[in-house]
Amino acid sequence: MRIVAALGGNALLERGEHPDSDIQQSHVEDAAAALAPLAQAHDLVITHGNGPQVGMLAMESARDPELSHPYPFDVLGAQTQGMIGYWLVQALTAAIPGARVGCLICQTIVDSDDPAFGNPAKFVGPVYEESQARMLAVQRGWAIRQDGAAWRRVVPSPEPREIVEMPLINLLVDSGALVVCAGGGGVPVTADSSGRLQGVEAVVDKDLTAALLARALGATALLLLTDVDAVIDGFGTAHARPVSRARPDDLRGLRLPAGSMGPKVEAACRFAEATGGTAAIGRLDDAPALLAGTAGTTVRR
Amino acid sequence: MRIVAALGGNALLERGEHPDSDIQQSHVEDAAAALAPLAQAHDLVITHGNGPQVGMLAMESARDPELSHPYPFDVLGAQTQGMIGYWLVQALTAAIPGARVGCLICQTIVDSDDPAFGNPAKFVGPVYEESQARMLAVQRGWAIRQDGAAWRRVVPSPEPREIVEMPLINLLVDSGALVVCAGGGGVPVTADSSGRLQGVEAVVDKDLTAALLARALGATALLLLTDVDAVIDGFGTAHARPVSRARPDDLRGLRLPAGSMGPKVEAACRFAEATGGTAAIGRLDDAPALLAGTAGTTVRR
Repeated sequence: MRIVAALGGNALLERGEHPDSDIQQSHVEDAAAALAPLAQAHDLVITHGNGPQVGMLAMESARDPELSHPYPFDVLGAQTQGMIGYWLVQALTAAIPGARVGCLICQTIVDSDDPAFGNPAKFVGPVYEESQARMLAVQRGWAIRQDGAAWRRVVPSPEPREIVEMPLINLLVDSGALVVCAGGGGVPVTADSSGRLQGVEAVVDKDLTAALLARALGATALLLLTDVDAVIDGFGTAHARPVSRARPDDLRGLRLPAGSMGPKVEAACRFAEATGGTAAIGRLDDAPALLAGTAGTTVRR
Repeated sequence: MRIVAALGGNALLERGEHPDSDIQQSHVEDAAAALAPLAQAHDLVITHGNGPQVGMLAMESARDPELSHPYPFDVLGAQTQGMIGYWLVQALTAAIPGARVGCLICQTIVDSDDPAFGNPAKFVGPVYEESQARMLAVQRGWAIRQDGAAWRRVVPSPEPREIVEMPLINLLVDSGALVVCAGGGGVPVTADSSGRLQGVEAVVDKDLTAALLARALGATALLLLTDVDAVIDGFGTAHARPVSRARPDDLRGLRLPAGSMGPKVEAACRFAEATGGTAAIGRLDDAPALLAGTAGTTVRR
């Protein structure tokens, strides 16, 4: 079986932790241990988020006195693919004896007229108090939004249309390699009429790209791995209960918490609808149980 | 023919230029145009330096108030592989219609007891005046050295022993892909007795890694591309003259300028000695002429 596993950016760095290299590398080692049983039994392809990481590098770049202007998000996203890919390759190689692991830098084509460019909505970087966020918005030209009790920077998150490196990903997977790819949703690029690619200031949602990746790979399962047990029906009400099984239409009708559960549900629904395969949302530690349908939320059409 | 081309880190950023993203991307586009004729006629594998880039990211990380301690050079090197790899993939795709281009994140195994760890010698990052460099050395625990008229930070540069991702590089090259890999000499790692890899605070010389890569690929030519015409015999004397052809033993006996020509000459000699193939040192713009032996310095055993 071919399986795509998508790791949340927060699986590498929990809220409140310093974004230190060794802390994240330690979380990546835990993630590799959780994924090892799946990689040993199946053709596994791993993708990952990069919200906290790309936000950190964006802050560093904005502070760099040597630069005329900070690095754009396509380039910062490519930096995070290299960094997180390196951590994952090293940890997976250690966790799975005999595995041949590789990370391919990936670009994701988006539409230049995607309405997301007029409505930045993807959270990146650290949390701020409202007054500080409003000051940064003025100083740096950021768009900001409330995220729970705190405030954060937001950038456009256009729809992923195509992963440019798909033929090479397929080639590596067919060879039996364990592939890490399309990190952070892939570096967002637009394609002109001649096919020339150009980076854009955006972050593609990594769960939606994971669904696209899983479809293009002909995967039979898509695991969206996060730090909650399952999708919750009636979130925030007295009747809240975890959903263990759902069809896409039912799942789309639920009242979901703010944040990243919306894109996860949408990614799961798209994959299940388009392929007839199984999508699952749940804890990284439960990855094998999610695939077996004994933990998390399982989505089938 | 299979050919390895190694681009200098300074081909992406000239001395005195701001390390802006758009400036480097423009240089990468020039490099892609210079390499396009080779890629159309041969199986080309491209590697690149990262001295200015890894130095910039190291400075940014050292300034980041969110971090308990700056990121180590293995992780920063992986970031530069993602960034420069992305630029190269995008520019090569535009310069070579129909090319399938990919960048693989690579680790290079070094010996944990390499004497370089006791003698940091690889220049990274910007140039400083002596007094400023000495202050930074005290403040940040850097090793520093004189580089021409200026001073710069230095880190250990151990010998590259093996490129971990070699089987995957071969697979991609065999498929006809144009591969970008082992950027910055590869992320330096040590391997323990069980084969477990661990990053180390170092930068592997990208020309020596390029020679290793070319040998492992069974390449017939290795092009070491820089911003000087050729190796100069009698450098700094009244009898200085460019060397157009040389055997490794002759070349090793020359008096060379300080800086990166020494590793280039050593890399060219190692490749020519080990394989019987042709190594050439010269200008990026002369890449096709270097391969033809009509420009630069050609090295054969």
